[in-house]
Amino acid sequence: MKDHYRNLRVAVLGGGTVGAQVANRLLNGANELGQRSGAGLELIGVAVRSLDAPRSAPIPKKLLTTDAASLIVGADIVVELMGGIEPARSLILQALHSGADVITANKALLAEHGPELFAAATQVGAQLYYEAAVAAAIPIIRPLRDSLAGDHVTKIMGIVNGTTNYILDEMDQKGLSFEHALAEATRLGYAEADPTADIEGFDAAQKACILSSLAFHTAVPLANVHREGITGVSASQIEAAKRSGHVIKLLAICERLVDPVTGLDGVSTRVHPTLIPRTHPLAAAHGANNAVYVEAEAAGPLMFYGAGAGGLQTASAVLGDIVSAARRHVVGGPGVGESTHADLPSIPLERVTSRRQVSLVVKDQPGVLAAIAKVFSDNGVSVETLHQSPAGEDETATLVIQTHRASEASGQDTVVALEKNPVVVKVTSVLRVEG
Amino acid sequence: MKDHYRNLRVAVLGGGTVGAQVANRLLNGANELGQRSGAGLELIGVAVRSLDAPRSAPIPKKLLTTDAASLIVGADIVVELMGGIEPARSLILQALHSGADVITANKALLAEHGPELFAAATQVGAQLYYEAAVAAAIPIIRPLRDSLAGDHVTKIMGIVNGTTNYILDEMDQKGLSFEHALAEATRLGYAEADPTADIEGFDAAQKACILSSLAFHTAVPLANVHREGITGVSASQIEAAKRSGHVIKLLAICERLVDPVTGLDGVSTRVHPTLIPRTHPLAAAHGANNAVYVEAEAAGPLMFYGAGAGGLQTASAVLGDIVSAARRHVVGGPGVGESTHADLPSIPLERVTSRRQVSLVVKDQPGVLAAIAKVFSDNGVSVETLHQSPAGEDETATLVIQTHRASEASGQDTVVALEKNPVVVKVTSVLRVEG
Repeated sequence: MKDHYRNLRVAVLGGGTVGAQVANRLLNGANELGQRSGAGLELIGVAVRSLDAPRSAPIPKKLLTTDAASLIVGADIVVELMGGIEPARSLILQALHSGADVITANKALLAEHGPELFAAATQVGAQLYYEAAVAAAIPIIRPLRDSLAGDHVTKIMGIVNGTTNYILDEMDQKGLSFEHALAEATRLGYAEADPTADIEGFDAAQKACILSSLAFHTAVPLANVHREGITGVSASQIEAAKRSGHVIKLLAICERLVDPVTGLDGVSTRVHPTLIPRTHPLAAAHGANNAVYVEAEAAGPLMFYGAGAGGLQTASAVLGDIVSAARRHVVGGPGVGESTHADLPSIPLERVTSRRQVSLVVKDQPGVLAAIAKVFSDNGVSVETLHQSPAGEDETATLVIQTHRASEASGQDTVVALEKNPVVVKVTSVLRVEG
Repeated sequence: MKDHYRNLRVAVLGGGTVGAQVANRLLNGANELGQRSGAGLELIGVAVRSLDAPRSAPIPKKLLTTDAASLIVGADIVVELMGGIEPARSLILQALHSGADVITANKALLAEHGPELFAAATQVGAQLYYEAAVAAAIPIIRPLRDSLAGDHVTKIMGIVNGTTNYILDEMDQKGLSFEHALAEATRLGYAEADPTADIEGFDAAQKACILSSLAFHTAVPLANVHREGITGVSASQIEAAKRSGHVIKLLAICERLVDPVTGLDGVSTRVHPTLIPRTHPLAAAHGANNAVYVEAEAAGPLMFYGAGAGGLQTASAVLGDIVSAARRHVVGGPGVGESTHADLPSIPLERVTSRRQVSLVVKDQPGVLAAIAKVFSDNGVSVETLHQSPAGEDETATLVIQTHRASEASGQDTVVALEKNPVVVKVTSVLRVEG
């Protein structure tokens, strides 16, 4: 194959950290990538916003252009690394319509406009690759799409946002407050100047949307993903979690369930701070690392672990996709399209049952435990464990109650009833429990 | 695509645990697998040794045959789950020459005859899939072949044999002797009646050979894989490992190194009991689980974790490969061939440097430490840490010495010199250290 290479023309859109690394490797590793692809890979240009901006890896001036639309014309493979919705969406559609394969790391775009992009790809027989969109270089898209294609995924729990994992891990390891840990993350460059997308769970929700769609062969709209961030997680919750043998992680949870209302199979996709046992494999994901835990009927539990962000790491995933795209160009044919044949409904969070840990301060007087237990049973919530810590000088005691599975409504009704109960001073924490 | 399915004819060779599960799922999940493949999947038969043997999942009698060679004729996809070298090798070659794609879980065959099989596949433009050959349903072949195709893998350390991991974990957790833990593994069905292939590291060496070839784009002959089993691992070594913050795992190590003799890049592939820190991600793989830790230049460290054996788990990987093969049949073209362009030499173990932990009993007399330290430095081995435990009533003390990297020769020379030294009563343990 080495002697009669076909040359494939690669256009890179975006000259930021990832774009510069990808361009650099295409220029300096072309021979090797060609041998792995069965086709020569020629970088025809890098579309950037400013020709003079500093680059994290050198790109020859003559390859830079500000005209992305013209660059795409005649490209066999278009690599979109601009981020954001527009002009990324229009440029990807232009590239797909021209028959080019497209590689993107743009999770926001995939979560919001995935079906439109996949439909455009299928229409012309082009391919859309996006391994880098979730957990950077950790292979998770390909394992779900290909390796588990003959199995039934039942649940995914993923730590898919490095910033929030760093913050929660610092709070857990060093006892920092949320504000202090966020400031530390910002100082070290783990958090952006405006950390909203990370700490409010928007980034994780986009990734959950992508994983849920892929795992359950169903187009899950981003609007159907329940999202809670970590701004409400307190140092005392972290401390209480530790005492009960748990750790708090921001999890993207994708679950195939029977909808209790319709009796039909459906999908629950949700992002929220979650208690997991410290012995759970996900608890070992420290710092800014990512980890994705997948349960499938035949394969059982699997875990994928590594760095979930970074220019080089993301470039690794993008380059793997470039080789896959090049191999497909050598082969010809339509490749693997989006798989949405299962077409399951999204189950709203209200119909999903969860275990919960409820912490509350109560008056230290006879009959309190019975009164509290009655509130739970009146609301149809069964208590799994109860810990009472000794009363302090203020004549209050602290209860930590872990429940069996109960619906959102029962859980919320219980909290409202607890807050109204005269023996309760304060409900200090309510967290869902997994694992 | 649903309306004009092409029907693909699938032949399964072998009706054991995995074969029966695969056949069962092809029969009962045909519709869904078809939707995921873009082609109908028709099970045309299962070749077995005995028509009347009991099956772990029911297969209709009319699908059973003892004539594997005839079954292959006219099959589009042949799934080899017989194990062993012959007749599996001849049947796979027959299938490939007839143009069928082949899926195999046969690690022994791949390790010994991989290049012959891959060459046959490339010659006719067929594909050979083998995700199930290493670590069952844990996706590791596809991530190495596709996801990391644009990166440089530098090292793999894998717990790829569930039986030995179970034995070592029992020894570590419960303080059992090797013999006791092996008996327990046999009783529970984790170890076979003749456990040689597992406990002597033959199984792990075959998997190391497959992983090394794939990761380094180099055909690594099985003869070049250094192999040591776990029969020599003692309860006291496990105990000492614990005291120094380590755990002993049987690791398959695949490493890209500069050969100190030739100065050229090469590959070291080796299987041996290894000390790793208890904080290393691999240390969290308990029981019969598998875990593969991969280091790549851009991606950094990644880990893949899950059940590494079992009929259902292996069937999951085989079915993923069947869907991949079916998708390729719909697409047409040659698919991804074996990648051996790097063609690196194997570096013999003698030229690989390792850190070591040496435990020895010495006479409790003045000047002992100096004498021991001199033995190490005389042999060019630098000491990293030294722990001395207090002398017992027999007037001996125990030293545990961890060294910096040194060659096999220096390591062995040191041990010989230690054993000859008058202050040394006994060298009790020598283990390589990673992580």
